[in-house]
Amino acid sequence: MPTPIATIDETHAPDLGSWVEGADMHPDFPIQNLPLGVFSVDGQVPRGGIAIGAMILDLAALAHSGLLEGEALAAAKAASGPTLNPLLALGTGPRRALRRAVSALLAKGSPKQPDVTPLLVPAHRARMHLPARVGDYSDFYVGIHHAAEVGALFRPEQPLLPNYKHIPIGYHGRASTIRPSGSPVIRPNGQTRGADGDLPRLGPTQRLDFELELGLWIGPGNTQGQPIPLGQAWEHMGGLTLLNDWSARDIQAWEYQPLGPFLSKSFHTTVSPWIVTTEALAPFRIAQPPRAEADPSVLPYLQDAKDQDKGALALDLEVTLSSAAMRARGEEPQVLSHTQACAMYWTLGQMVAHHTVNGCALESGDLLGTGTLSGPEPGSKGSLLEITRGGAQPLQLPREETRTFLEDGDEVVLKGRFMAEGRRSIGFGECRGVIASAPQI
Amino acid sequence: MPTPIATIDETHAPDLGSWVEGADMHPDFPIQNLPLGVFSVDGQVPRGGIAIGAMILDLAALAHSGLLEGEALAAAKAASGPTLNPLLALGTGPRRALRRAVSALLAKGSPKQPDVTPLLVPAHRARMHLPARVGDYSDFYVGIHHAAEVGALFRPEQPLLPNYKHIPIGYHGRASTIRPSGSPVIRPNGQTRGADGDLPRLGPTQRLDFELELGLWIGPGNTQGQPIPLGQAWEHMGGLTLLNDWSARDIQAWEYQPLGPFLSKSFHTTVSPWIVTTEALAPFRIAQPPRAEADPSVLPYLQDAKDQDKGALALDLEVTLSSAAMRARGEEPQVLSHTQACAMYWTLGQMVAHHTVNGCALESGDLLGTGTLSGPEPGSKGSLLEITRGGAQPLQLPREETRTFLEDGDEVVLKGRFMAEGRRSIGFGECRGVIASAPQI
Repeated sequence: MPTPIATIDETHAPDLGSWVEGADMHPDFPIQNLPLGVFSVDGQVPRGGIAIGAMILDLAALAHSGLLEGEALAAAKAASGPTLNPLLALGTGPRRALRRAVSALLAKGSPKQPDVTPLLVPAHRARMHLPARVGDYSDFYVGIHHAAEVGALFRPEQPLLPNYKHIPIGYHGRASTIRPSGSPVIRPNGQTRGADGDLPRLGPTQRLDFELELGLWIGPGNTQGQPIPLGQAWEHMGGLTLLNDWSARDIQAWEYQPLGPFLSKSFHTTVSPWIVTTEALAPFRIAQPPRAEADPSVLPYLQDAKDQDKGALALDLEVTLSSAAMRARGEEPQVLSHTQACAMYWTLGQMVAHHTVNGCALESGDLLGTGTLSGPEPGSKGSLLEITRGGAQPLQLPREETRTFLEDGDEVVLKGRFMAEGRRSIGFGECRGVIASAPQI
Repeated sequence: MPTPIATIDETHAPDLGSWVEGADMHPDFPIQNLPLGVFSVDGQVPRGGIAIGAMILDLAALAHSGLLEGEALAAAKAASGPTLNPLLALGTGPRRALRRAVSALLAKGSPKQPDVTPLLVPAHRARMHLPARVGDYSDFYVGIHHAAEVGALFRPEQPLLPNYKHIPIGYHGRASTIRPSGSPVIRPNGQTRGADGDLPRLGPTQRLDFELELGLWIGPGNTQGQPIPLGQAWEHMGGLTLLNDWSARDIQAWEYQPLGPFLSKSFHTTVSPWIVTTEALAPFRIAQPPRAEADPSVLPYLQDAKDQDKGALALDLEVTLSSAAMRARGEEPQVLSHTQACAMYWTLGQMVAHHTVNGCALESGDLLGTGTLSGPEPGSKGSLLEITRGGAQPLQLPREETRTFLEDGDEVVLKGRFMAEGRRSIGFGECRGVIASAPQI
C-alpha cells in the first residue's frame, strides 16, 4: 500500500507551540516546520539536524538518546552521517515518523524537555553544509512568465517555443559546484562574443545574474527503465529548498547553441541549506492555476486530477540586493522582486513524471531546479535579465548607485515563506551569496 | 614539481612479454596496456583489477600480498574498493608507480610469477562494473565532421555555428544512467512532435541511434574557482574508455530547444569497463592535425604548443551492428564504421581547460565525452543519423534486412585500438549494448 502523502495532522496545528525559546515567533522555523539539514560545530564531522527556532536539534545525538524507536529511530540513524542521502532513500514513511516524534519531543509541555535540551545546538555556532551529496542536478524551465519574457528578448516573434506547453522543458546542470548559502560566488571568466567581426574575448563576465528558483530534493527515486507515474511522484520527493542558479548572460549567449547552457551556469549554484520536507509543506499545497482556454491539452502521462488539485504551492518568494556600499552604510537591502511560486506552468509532480518517462533513473539526493520563477507584473521578476530588460533599463539603488547586472561585492538573498489562511507560516531560511571578483587568468 | 606526463618507458617496450598465457597475443590487453577496471566474482564485493590477456589481476589481493611498496602500494590500496575514484584522486604519480610495479611482476622471467599467479582471476568468470562513481558527466562535440554533417541536416545554410571553431562546445549529461558494456539498453519512451498541426505523441522512440565517442575519466581535478591551465590538463586525466551516447533522435528534435538535449540522451550511456590509462597510451599521442588556413586562431587559454604537438591520438575506431536474426544465424556482425580519433577538432586538453576556465570544479571520477567521432568519408560515420542521412538512405544488412535506426534486438559494439609504428597495439575491450524493447506505459 502506498504511503499516504500530504496528510495534514497534529504536527501542523497552528496553535501548537514549542518549549524552545523564541521558536514560536521564528519567521522560518516554528515547530510546524522542522526542516532537515546537515551541520557541523567546531570543525567536527557534519551530521543531520532539524532547525527549531534559533536552535538545531542534533539528529546523531537524538539517535543515541533512547528517545526514539521504530521508524523514527531508523530515520534519525539514517540522518546521523555527513549527508542526508540515506534518509532521503527511506522515503516518506520514516521521515514522517521522525517528524511526528520530534514534534512531540519539542512541543510545549513535553515531559522529555530535560532530555532533549542537551541535544540542541545554537544555530549561530553551526556551519551548514549541503544537505545531500547531489548525484545529478537537472534544471527545468517551468516559470512561464520568465520563459516568455526571456524568449521575447531573444525571439520577439516567438517568445514561447512550440514545445513549451507540451513538455516540462529541462536540461542537465552541474552537480559539483552546488554550494550551501553563504559560500562566496566567484565571478567566472569565460568566452564572450566579440564585437562585429572581431574574435571572441576571454575575461570576467560582464553580465552576471541571479535566478530565483526552487530546488526539489529527490528520494527515494526509481530504477533505470521504470518511470515514476505522475500519481506516485510525491512519494519520491524529499522536500524543497531555495535555489539561485547564478548565470553569466554574455557567456550563455555565445556558447548555448546548439547544446544549451554550459559554462554560463556551471561555476556556482547556491541552495538554502534546510530541506523543507513534503510533510511540512502539506498544508500549503493548493490547486494548480487553471490553464488558459487556448492552451493545448497535455499527454495522459502528464495528466492527474489529484496533482492538479494539489500541484501548486502557497509560497511567497522574495529577492533582495545590497551593494557593498549599502552594507557598509548599514542600509537595508533593496527588494528586487516579490513573487509567488504559483507562476509554475508545470507542477513538481509533472517535472518528476516527465524526467523519468524515458526510464531515466532519479536517485536519492538528486536535485531538480524549477527554473526561474517570475510573476507577470513589474516587481515580480526573478532575474536581472528581466528586471533591467537585458541591461537596457538600469536599476536604481540608493545614493546614485545603479545596476544592470551584478557587481563585485553585491549580495543577493532569496527568501521564501509558505503562507495559508489559518496556518502558521514556515520558511526556508536564507539563500545568500556575495559576488567575489574573478581570478586573474 | 609537476609529475612528468606521457613519458615512454620500459613498460611500453614492444618486445616486452608476459608470462600470463596468451597475453602477448591478446588484441587489447598485452602487458603494454594494463588497463584499470572494477570487477566482481561470484557476487562478492567489487574491487579494482588490471586486465592482462584473458585474466584480471586482483588489486585488492595484490595490495595485501606484500609484493608492492611505496607509491605503488598506495595506489593498489586506493584501487581495492568498489570504485576507482580514490585511485583517480591520487593522480599520475602513484598510478604510474603501480603500472611499473605490475609490469615488472607480470613480465616474462619475473621471479615473482609463483606469488602473482594466485592473484589472477579468469576474466570470463568476472562481472565488470563501472570503473568509478561518476559525479558529473559532460559531453562535448569535438568531432568536426559529425558536427558539420548533422548541422547540414538541420541547417543546410549554416552547418557549423559561428562559435564552433572558438569554443569546445559541450553540455551537461546524465550521470545516473551510465552503465558498463553489456547492460541491456531499454528503448526509451518519450514525446515526439506530432504530424503537422497534430498534438505530440508519446511512445517508444522510432529513431534510436548510437554515437561513437571516447570517454575521458578525470582525476584528480581542481578546486572550484581555480581553472586547470591547458599545460596542466594531462595531469588531471586518468585515462580513456569507449563511450556510446545512445540517442533518441525524434525525442531530441522535439525537446532540444532552447536548453539542449535532455531525455533523448539521459536513458542510457554505455562505457567500456576498462580505463586505458594516460600512462598506457603515451606512445600513441601524436600531433594534432593542423587547422585549415582559413580557421580562426583560438584564444590564448586554448593555445599550447606542447598540447598541439601531442594532443591527438593514434587510435582506430570501429562500430559493428548485428541484428537478432544475424546472431541467430551465427553471422558475423556488419562493420558500420571505421574511423580515427584524430577527427577531433579540439584536443582532450582543450576540453579540460575550457571546462574549468570559469572555475567549474572537475572531480575524480567525472567523465567527459568527446562527442561523436566521424571521419570525413563514407564508411567512417559515428552515428546512424549520418550513415542513413537522417533515415533517408536505409542501410543494407544481410538477407534483405535494412535499417534506418536501431531495432529491438540489435547489438552495437564499439571497438578501439591504439596503433603506432614500432609499438605493440593496445585496446579497450568491448563497448557493447543490445536494444531491449520499450516498457509499456
